[in-house]
Amino acid sequence: MIQLRDCFPFWKALTKEQQNTMEESAVKRTFEKGTLLHAGEEDCVGLIAVAEGLLRVYTVSEEGKEMTMYRLLERDVCLFSASCIFQDIRFDVMVSAAEDTTVYHIPAELYRRLMETSLPVMEYTSRLMASRFSDVMWLMDQVMNKKLDSRLAAFLLEEAGRMGTDRLELTHEQIGGHLGSAREVVSRMLKHFQKEGLVQLGRGSITLSDEEGLTRLAQGSLM
Amino acid sequence: MIQLRDCFPFWKALTKEQQNTMEESAVKRTFEKGTLLHAGEEDCVGLIAVAEGLLRVYTVSEEGKEMTMYRLLERDVCLFSASCIFQDIRFDVMVSAAEDTTVYHIPAELYRRLMETSLPVMEYTSRLMASRFSDVMWLMDQVMNKKLDSRLAAFLLEEAGRMGTDRLELTHEQIGGHLGSAREVVSRMLKHFQKEGLVQLGRGSITLSDEEGLTRLAQGSLM
Repeated sequence: MIQLRDCFPFWKALTKEQQNTMEESAVKRTFEKGTLLHAGEEDCVGLIAVAEGLLRVYTVSEEGKEMTMYRLLERDVCLFSASCIFQDIRFDVMVSAAEDTTVYHIPAELYRRLMETSLPVMEYTSRLMASRFSDVMWLMDQVMNKKLDSRLAAFLLEEAGRMGTDRLELTHEQIGGHLGSAREVVSRMLKHFQKEGLVQLGRGSITLSDEEGLTRLAQGSLM
Repeated sequence: MIQLRDCFPFWKALTKEQQNTMEESAVKRTFEKGTLLHAGEEDCVGLIAVAEGLLRVYTVSEEGKEMTMYRLLERDVCLFSASCIFQDIRFDVMVSAAEDTTVYHIPAELYRRLMETSLPVMEYTSRLMASRFSDVMWLMDQVMNKKLDSRLAAFLLEEAGRMGTDRLELTHEQIGGHLGSAREVVSRMLKHFQKEGLVQLGRGSITLSDEEGLTRLAQGSLM
């Protein structure tokens, strides 16, 4: 399993004492698939580093509509679960376990002190923020400018690649949550995909039957 | 006019030498309304701090659709015009003068050196990034979840407040650029507003006639 030190590229730049404090304060916890790890601003749980599994970071609109911002794989770190230490972060995110997931949990106050005394830690934090910002800008471009069919095709391909299988066990509701669309809209589009021979729909599963066609569609051309 | 030191809260934390270097390297330039100051990634002009005027920071989709991310007023600083020094920024923005605007231009390389040696500068940069990130998350929420009528009403009110007048000289095309909508869509909505007695449309101008109604609409309720 991934170690704490593997999640933080600045590890070697820390003093021995800082390393010890971090290792002693970090708590390893396992969450079952579906568990909510962090729910918005009032819940400043600290930094979360993924040791094993998969987390989903998303926003929820006032009307309850979910939208996935990005997903965190092994070694990835979530800053926004410690948003109380970043005064200028004025938005809330939710973090939930998309699979059974083991994380290292670093107390917010400890990280704040590290950041305030170590330039490499501050630099890492800033870079991580820039990287997440870029993810969200990409997403915004997708939402603004790409049609749902391209986004759905891209999502199915990405998911198949990540899981190493052509048969995805996902509900239409889950897909809607990722794409910020209603379940009905996703279902309709999937039925259209099936008619075009791109996928095969089963009970609680979607099988990719024409990866080439999906790739063309994901690139926003044709059809 | 705003001085260079007024734009950067970390000024007092710099050494005398760093302050001198910054003042000697910063170039004061004035741009006419409509001038493009920065056009995407390949154009790493450095940091831009607004001494007087108003800048618009926006993205352009592949199809040429513009979307305002935020606007920079006096004392505001644009990081993304120096995106070459932030490796993890993987998106392009355009910066143009929305009014005749005077800026201080700080060379990218100089700022990078400052950031790498001064924790307060790094911290400021990180906070600024967090703040812009928050602006964009707010925008994304607007785009995803609010209807155009609310967003248009909010924009008209904000603009009237900023200019201190009820009579706005804006084309429907400009408004479309701000809201990420086509000119036709904006025109149609403005005509609808006029019918409802919210605005009065003139040649190249829009007069707000019912601020209370617009405010209700901006808050996303009623109508």
